[in-house]
Amino acid sequence: MPVNALGRELPGFIEGYGEVKPFQGAFAREPEVRSAGQPMRKGRDAMGSKVRRSLRDAIEASGLKSGMTVSFHHHLRNGDLVVNQVIKTCAEMGIGDLTIFPTALFGVHKELIDHIRSGVVRRIMGSVNGPIGKLVSQGGMAEPVVLRSHGGRPRAVASGEVKIDVAFIGAPSADRFGNLSGAMGRSACGSLGYAFTDAMYADHVVAVTDNLVEGMLCPISIPQMYVDQVVAVESIGDPSGIVSGSTRITRDPLRLLIAQMASSLIEASSCFKDGISFQTGAGGIPLAVTAFMKDAMIRRNVKGSFGLGGITGYFVELLKEGLVECLMDVQSFDLEAVRSIGSDPRHMEISAEWYASPWTKGSAVDSLDVVILGATEVDLDFNVNVNTEADGYLLHGIGGHQDTAAGAKLTIIAQPLLRGRIPCVVDRVHCATTPGEVVDAVVTEFGITVNPARGDLISAAREAKLPLISMEELLSKARAICGPMDPLEQEDRIVAVVEWRDGTVIDVIRKVKA
Amino acid sequence: MPVNALGRELPGFIEGYGEVKPFQGAFAREPEVRSAGQPMRKGRDAMGSKVRRSLRDAIEASGLKSGMTVSFHHHLRNGDLVVNQVIKTCAEMGIGDLTIFPTALFGVHKELIDHIRSGVVRRIMGSVNGPIGKLVSQGGMAEPVVLRSHGGRPRAVASGEVKIDVAFIGAPSADRFGNLSGAMGRSACGSLGYAFTDAMYADHVVAVTDNLVEGMLCPISIPQMYVDQVVAVESIGDPSGIVSGSTRITRDPLRLLIAQMASSLIEASSCFKDGISFQTGAGGIPLAVTAFMKDAMIRRNVKGSFGLGGITGYFVELLKEGLVECLMDVQSFDLEAVRSIGSDPRHMEISAEWYASPWTKGSAVDSLDVVILGATEVDLDFNVNVNTEADGYLLHGIGGHQDTAAGAKLTIIAQPLLRGRIPCVVDRVHCATTPGEVVDAVVTEFGITVNPARGDLISAAREAKLPLISMEELLSKARAICGPMDPLEQEDRIVAVVEWRDGTVIDVIRKVKA
Repeated sequence: MPVNALGRELPGFIEGYGEVKPFQGAFAREPEVRSAGQPMRKGRDAMGSKVRRSLRDAIEASGLKSGMTVSFHHHLRNGDLVVNQVIKTCAEMGIGDLTIFPTALFGVHKELIDHIRSGVVRRIMGSVNGPIGKLVSQGGMAEPVVLRSHGGRPRAVASGEVKIDVAFIGAPSADRFGNLSGAMGRSACGSLGYAFTDAMYADHVVAVTDNLVEGMLCPISIPQMYVDQVVAVESIGDPSGIVSGSTRITRDPLRLLIAQMASSLIEASSCFKDGISFQTGAGGIPLAVTAFMKDAMIRRNVKGSFGLGGITGYFVELLKEGLVECLMDVQSFDLEAVRSIGSDPRHMEISAEWYASPWTKGSAVDSLDVVILGATEVDLDFNVNVNTEADGYLLHGIGGHQDTAAGAKLTIIAQPLLRGRIPCVVDRVHCATTPGEVVDAVVTEFGITVNPARGDLISAAREAKLPLISMEELLSKARAICGPMDPLEQEDRIVAVVEWRDGTVIDVIRKVKA
Repeated sequence: MPVNALGRELPGFIEGYGEVKPFQGAFAREPEVRSAGQPMRKGRDAMGSKVRRSLRDAIEASGLKSGMTVSFHHHLRNGDLVVNQVIKTCAEMGIGDLTIFPTALFGVHKELIDHIRSGVVRRIMGSVNGPIGKLVSQGGMAEPVVLRSHGGRPRAVASGEVKIDVAFIGAPSADRFGNLSGAMGRSACGSLGYAFTDAMYADHVVAVTDNLVEGMLCPISIPQMYVDQVVAVESIGDPSGIVSGSTRITRDPLRLLIAQMASSLIEASSCFKDGISFQTGAGGIPLAVTAFMKDAMIRRNVKGSFGLGGITGYFVELLKEGLVECLMDVQSFDLEAVRSIGSDPRHMEISAEWYASPWTKGSAVDSLDVVILGATEVDLDFNVNVNTEADGYLLHGIGGHQDTAAGAKLTIIAQPLLRGRIPCVVDRVHCATTPGEVVDAVVTEFGITVNPARGDLISAAREAKLPLISMEELLSKARAICGPMDPLEQEDRIVAVVEWRDGTVIDVIRKVKA
């Protein structure tokens, strides 16, 4: 079986996926196409009848048929009611054999399992967090799930590798002309970043809203020129699941120690100067890193440029205090972020393509200085796994992991070495999500492990007297504490294909042993 | 020679233009293509080296060669220094035989005449206001100019009928990542609406700025993902020519009378109710209509929805006073509008495609209630000429005339019957820019002339006791005052092709008699 640049064995062809283009290095693949465009339509005809009375009417008018591909975005997260409503309606209409192409699925979508079993949903291309991932890992789907990063997904769409037949966009606010926004309405989710690609490239676009406003929506996020239909439904989301009231910094002393070391590494690096930009996401450790960095910025009088990515109230605070000049928001994580994006012009909404696609003339991640990321496993080559858990189950999506790691000047994985008795440092990651060539450092409670390729960073860390530890030492510590780990048993069958952001295959995930 | 739906004689093929698709009615042509997309590029490579030291460097790096098509936008209007600098540099570099594709040229661009004579510029597709129009009318260009409306141009680009090799975007502010804005900088022009299409579809995009900011630009108008290069030059524009300090309402009693009648017609129509939207542009009469409408709205407690198009301080005032809920700005006409777009989120920037393209899923003009437009001539069939003057010279572009007339529920031409001894009402317009089927009424100092196809509007005007006059009566008056007009003498040679917004040919303009 051929191997890719990470030594992963891959078949040349995977049933239900197609021809495998093996991963050849983080920046190897050259784009050779024009972006795909979308069917042009006569605006006068479109505008005559955008508003539909029911999802069923809209699905009928969209021309959706069995075997087609439908897309969704996940800004409504675990509060999303759109995916379930649409698929249920398709089932009632006798439409089946669908490929669903969500940016991500959550626990709330577990009712899809029945539709998978009954053949309404044949294939999933998108992140499967939780119960559907578990089903997939156990071989519950006939065709492999395809995992793409937040940048890889719009790249695949724009390049024509994935064609969306009908995009369903959950819109917290919409007007009858088809203008959409996520900043207002009772299901407000803030940025609609991931939905832009679907709106701009799908053959047909249906907006589903529970807040159809009178007159012209203002401000507008996704413009009417991309939207074919607007359907008002009772509810598109459960507010309690859409955004958390607030995101929280970890209180665990061990995690705070890791965050403190990560922050010190940033401070020691050449990135720590006026104009620094960073992404820290919503995890407990990354948020703590943000807090420590804020202290360091104030202490050393450093003013940042932009905060990127999934945006939290902590970033909003940095903006308000003048520690960053602007925020670039592809996904708003908490209520503070939702409020801010609707009221502060320095808090900018960006599309997923703008955020992270490797095949534009430069996405936001390409301008990024520092990113703090997590991992379920890191190995001796600094390859990172974020998809499977220690038991081999596929439970997490890629998110922006690959994209920010590839784009940022300084990519730090901050993660405790041990979760219970499970080490996060291993010989060889079970699933390679992000290649070691774009990972600069791993910070655990045992110190800072810098990728040997980053001699400059090692010197900087030494000079700052930071506690360095090699990956080999870290692995020894893990082994000494946890003992030898039993190799994961798995079957041959491929249940998921993990694409690198450029569309090559970086790894596959196989069925867990029954 | 075949005739189109307006009875205009058109050859089947025009040298330097190509095959003629004859106009078949305002809403006849069906789009049958996907939008064109643009070449995809590896962001990491693009971001490495966006900033160039000189226009020459940028042109070299763009791959621009003789015979190619270069585009420009006209937000810097008669203050624009970008077109002249780029074409001069091309001339110095020995690049010639160019097709230039500006949204519009002004008096400041008269130095292009030398480049036309020397063969650097072979063809112009775009509005030619003033001296270049005169040159064209006299047969000074080998190939015909192609005139397109503000909506027809992005339609032509998006549909692939026009391919832009290199787009040059004058950007009042830019950052090194390629993010652009027109709202800030000493050459601030407000909206960059027309430039979006070029940025999104050109093979290569060069931003030319005189304000290269540190860090990340904020807010961003055109994102970095569309921009290949950024060149900082000494100056992109002369502020005095970019925006007028303020636009002015006419003080001429005759014109005020016309404006008052137009406003009364709107008030009498079914459009005059809460949620009314309108476009009035920057002319003296239309601005006066805005003022009269404002009075009427206050008097009758009507609240508007959106103001559209070229935006002036008068519209900003309506926004501030709550008479409209938002502004949709494709071009900011005065300083007040520039200030407002940079500070008020209800003042939204829209692209030309969003504004007016007939081939999207609904552009802003498709949602428009009322538009007030001008004309150089109107004829018995309500066809309108805005391109040629009474002497047959091509001196004006189409602007949004066709698009708003086609989109609005109520299209009013407001114009004095007589300018000196030249009547604006004629048997048959010299050049048909906009077909009578989308023109609802003509208002002159002699009263209101409603298109007979609009029986509802005639009834409404009668009920409101407005002074109605038929087109035939108006023509008699014009003849009685001015005497018979000599027919315009012209030669056979076609010097300009006037496209209807859907890409069909509505008329041609021929060489004036030497």
